[in-house]
Amino acid sequence: MKELEQIKEGLRKEIRSIVLNPLASGERLEKLREVMADQKVDGFIVPLNDEFHGEAAPAAAERLKWLTGFTGSAGFAVVLKDTAAIFVDGRYTLQVRNEVDVTLFTPRHVSEEPMSDWLSDNMPVGAKLAVDPWLHTEGNMSSLKKIAADIGITLKPVSENLIDKVWEDRPPSPLALVQPQEERFAGESSASKRNRIAAKLADNDTDAIIHTLPDVIAWLLNIRGADLPCTPFALGFAITHKDATVDLFMEERKFAANLHEHLGNMVRVHAPAEFESTLLSFKGKHVQIDPSVTSQYIVDQLTVATARISRAEDLCLLPKAIKNTVEIEGSRRAHVRDGAAVAKFLHWLSINGPTGNVDELSAEAKLRAFREVGENFRDLSFNTISGAGPNGAIVHYRASEASNRQLETGSLYLVDSGAQYLDGTTDITRTIAIGEPNAEMRKNFTLVLKGHIALARAVFPKGTTGSQLDTLARAPLWAAGLDYDHGTGHGVGSYLSVHEGPQRISKAPSTIALAPGMIISNEPGYYKTGAYGIRIENLVTVREVTPPEGAERLTYGFETLTFAPIDKALIEKSLLTDSEIAWLNGYHYDVYEKLEPQLEGDAAQWLRRATAPL
Amino acid sequence: MKELEQIKEGLRKEIRSIVLNPLASGERLEKLREVMADQKVDGFIVPLNDEFHGEAAPAAAERLKWLTGFTGSAGFAVVLKDTAAIFVDGRYTLQVRNEVDVTLFTPRHVSEEPMSDWLSDNMPVGAKLAVDPWLHTEGNMSSLKKIAADIGITLKPVSENLIDKVWEDRPPSPLALVQPQEERFAGESSASKRNRIAAKLADNDTDAIIHTLPDVIAWLLNIRGADLPCTPFALGFAITHKDATVDLFMEERKFAANLHEHLGNMVRVHAPAEFESTLLSFKGKHVQIDPSVTSQYIVDQLTVATARISRAEDLCLLPKAIKNTVEIEGSRRAHVRDGAAVAKFLHWLSINGPTGNVDELSAEAKLRAFREVGENFRDLSFNTISGAGPNGAIVHYRASEASNRQLETGSLYLVDSGAQYLDGTTDITRTIAIGEPNAEMRKNFTLVLKGHIALARAVFPKGTTGSQLDTLARAPLWAAGLDYDHGTGHGVGSYLSVHEGPQRISKAPSTIALAPGMIISNEPGYYKTGAYGIRIENLVTVREVTPPEGAERLTYGFETLTFAPIDKALIEKSLLTDSEIAWLNGYHYDVYEKLEPQLEGDAAQWLRRATAPL
Repeated sequence: MKELEQIKEGLRKEIRSIVLNPLASGERLEKLREVMADQKVDGFIVPLNDEFHGEAAPAAAERLKWLTGFTGSAGFAVVLKDTAAIFVDGRYTLQVRNEVDVTLFTPRHVSEEPMSDWLSDNMPVGAKLAVDPWLHTEGNMSSLKKIAADIGITLKPVSENLIDKVWEDRPPSPLALVQPQEERFAGESSASKRNRIAAKLADNDTDAIIHTLPDVIAWLLNIRGADLPCTPFALGFAITHKDATVDLFMEERKFAANLHEHLGNMVRVHAPAEFESTLLSFKGKHVQIDPSVTSQYIVDQLTVATARISRAEDLCLLPKAIKNTVEIEGSRRAHVRDGAAVAKFLHWLSINGPTGNVDELSAEAKLRAFREVGENFRDLSFNTISGAGPNGAIVHYRASEASNRQLETGSLYLVDSGAQYLDGTTDITRTIAIGEPNAEMRKNFTLVLKGHIALARAVFPKGTTGSQLDTLARAPLWAAGLDYDHGTGHGVGSYLSVHEGPQRISKAPSTIALAPGMIISNEPGYYKTGAYGIRIENLVTVREVTPPEGAERLTYGFETLTFAPIDKALIEKSLLTDSEIAWLNGYHYDVYEKLEPQLEGDAAQWLRRATAPL
Repeated sequence: MKELEQIKEGLRKEIRSIVLNPLASGERLEKLREVMADQKVDGFIVPLNDEFHGEAAPAAAERLKWLTGFTGSAGFAVVLKDTAAIFVDGRYTLQVRNEVDVTLFTPRHVSEEPMSDWLSDNMPVGAKLAVDPWLHTEGNMSSLKKIAADIGITLKPVSENLIDKVWEDRPPSPLALVQPQEERFAGESSASKRNRIAAKLADNDTDAIIHTLPDVIAWLLNIRGADLPCTPFALGFAITHKDATVDLFMEERKFAANLHEHLGNMVRVHAPAEFESTLLSFKGKHVQIDPSVTSQYIVDQLTVATARISRAEDLCLLPKAIKNTVEIEGSRRAHVRDGAAVAKFLHWLSINGPTGNVDELSAEAKLRAFREVGENFRDLSFNTISGAGPNGAIVHYRASEASNRQLETGSLYLVDSGAQYLDGTTDITRTIAIGEPNAEMRKNFTLVLKGHIALARAVFPKGTTGSQLDTLARAPLWAAGLDYDHGTGHGVGSYLSVHEGPQRISKAPSTIALAPGMIISNEPGYYKTGAYGIRIENLVTVREVTPPEGAERLTYGFETLTFAPIDKALIEKSLLTDSEIAWLNGYHYDVYEKLEPQLEGDAAQWLRRATAPL
């Protein structure tokens, strides 16, 4: 097992080195330009996403990374005959300069130095800009069309991606095993889910709905794959019809032996190549798509077929977000196992951290090792953020050999990590004092904690959205003239993506009411650039609360799912109210009760101290 | 002066009796149908608004009220050959049945029983529905066009409103005096304001902007009129050009002797009838309109003129909302005078309320009398909400002879009122215990007070919107399973409308950041239908706060402008935290300091007791 894992890791590294090779950018760019010349086009857009428009893409679809070396989570390049540019947002303006050969790709800030200006300066009227209609959504393509019209150039859809034509050592598309997600974890049969979606289609007088999001398909069919790291997705497309049958377009070679039986005869399996002809068969039919995740290519085929297209959020998103009782039970169990792994790690860190012999990468590996032995463990749920000192202030930090820092006495260590278990997905952040923290660190940690507690204890009427609660988590920082520049909470899947919608807790307005069964993170933070980062993250689930006497509204609150000690060395008790102290002591009591049975000896002793009342 | 006021009030009543005469509905409807037949149309829409699309309309434009008797603040009627309906929202479904002859007008819930369904049931394909393009905005007209297309009827714009053709005793259009608002109150010259707007037009490469909102025109030109009760508006249209000149379309007969000199030669005054030809002169020009308040008629003329139309919020809205220091100073002074009038009233009420000899109308009149003698008093800023017992639970209550209730011992009395002073507009709500309140009243009042205090004390970074703060005012009620179904705060003008945008504090998402100088209300409440209502309302202004040590963000907070005692008999002290008690005591200290110099004898003694520390 261990050996197999090592072989897999070796292969992963090899693939990574093929994809991520910025030194090769010049040669690759040259080949791309040859193809552009062959095709008689003057430019080509290289987005980061693949045709599924999800959060991540497999190595075979990492075209932007292959071409430029850029590893951020958002951005795109445009290659013209004599020049090229890469467009990134404010998070990546520094990183892009470290990763990309700027003599080949001019870095530009995507909103302050928009593509339209650059195209207008660099493309003559009448020039042809090639686009791959599989990699742009309809909305995205409309913006491109408007820009093209404004500056007098033509968009030319290509039938094969131009990168793919020159990418000789391109990794194969993933063919990871697709298995049933057993009903004892899913809590509802796929047939029941399909009937629910079909009933909604009937209500809306719609014939069919196209699903492109891998987590939607995994949820709908109760299947899990491994085509992407950290997320158990099986890449493919699916169509649900109003008769509750589903067409699934996926490589059958990926299927586990029992998958056909699991899917049953209401799910017709097709080769991916048959997707197009199926779209073309919707003549005159009423078909729903989700415009934010559906390729222009799909819209084009439906248009050719003269289908009537409705545009709305995928009907599976809300039912998927609202977990059933089996999923919530599974999440509770997964979190107790995950909490034990985290507690073992924190105990180990309490001994080894102050010695000066721990660095970000070794800490990350140790935490992984504690998790991997847990029941139902399948993978991490995302790349661990293991940030020592100033690296903790980089919100999306990922430690590398180059950036790796020692954990130093008198500094803070921030670790944001999670795992995929068959029965649930976890995501937890703890900030730990290495040695003695200073007063400022303690003050700011306590302000973040006050926000975390305010959100954890919030009660609110049915109909309340996450954006209405966001301020509760920020108010203590605001009072000190501080804030953090990220959302406060994201939805989390059930052995699915660690980031899922439609609910969220953030400053940005949301129209999605929080509903019982939703799982969402509670993660306020504070970041002092160049010095340290603080974040305290637990997952919570929405539930009905016992109505107070005289209550008139159906009232909801949160149940905290994550259990691991919060570092008391960082708490300035005088800044907490009595009821905040009571919350913390109550939380730590629960942490001890749930984790102690899984710990032994010193670790159990440490847990008792770490969770003793403040 | 007093006699003049009585004559004015008599005239107001006469006009009211002409407009509001539901008994005449049958006859009026018949005449309208005759005109419809003459004009060969099968239906006519009667909106509530006038051509300025503001919050109120003069008697001459109260066509819906004249036709149906409905006095609510939102709704419309549709009259067909043999049937008619009136569409209102949830606030008015009961009221409409009391006011309107339902054998003539079928009452319908505007969203649950929409006009489209009713038209589809009652108009045959090919029928003609007449509309007055002055009374529908472009957005409103697009919805109508879509509905008409769906059910196969035709919209027919009429050149004269069909109601106007049959309204024989129609009151004249208002011709109230228009006077300059002196710079010692306005704080900025009209020329300076016009230059600011013209600079924005130049930035946006726009030739001109059409202003339709009366408060925008009053602000821009530093003029005030009296065409509408409670709001010092002078009805008219205006156009600002990029050279900072303005065309004003308004009856010159209304002008005070010094108004021409005040306006100067950069403002060209035209008769209202010249508005159309001016619109038609914008051939090929780039003209900005605010689509939410601009009549389809105006858009049509601009379209005929082949003007290029940009649609955006009126450029004056934000500058008007952000008061200058002279306006804020004026508001502070006006509030101290207003607070003294309210305090005198509350003192009077403390003596007379428990006697059983006070009713809603007499209390309202007494409060008005205390206000009227104040310096710079011009009018009330809205119709006083004077609600005893269960009437206090009706959010938009207005006492009438029919509804008038005694103030009874053991009940609550809610009074929401305000005034227009030359130097500022006020709006205050106090809830008063008449005799001994019960424990439930005290608990719920205290929860509302906790929300009021939380909002009053809020500090927040630049960029924060009112919707981000709304939850602070609700959280204490939410924790008890309670809530209120209205916004928490609305913008307030400077001797202008008591309701103004663009900022607000509400559950509904807002994209308008709160900025120093904005004035906004802080008015959480709780309403127990059939029993009592509670609301505590002060006006506040946004200002920069002294940065806490270590602050990194530019931080704002509120300064409370309103000063009047909050009834301590309704406070359950054990529910307040120490810091909430400190806020209340500090507020009451300020109330005493500011109001005591204006009170005498018993009233001053009463104020001392009413503001003594809790």
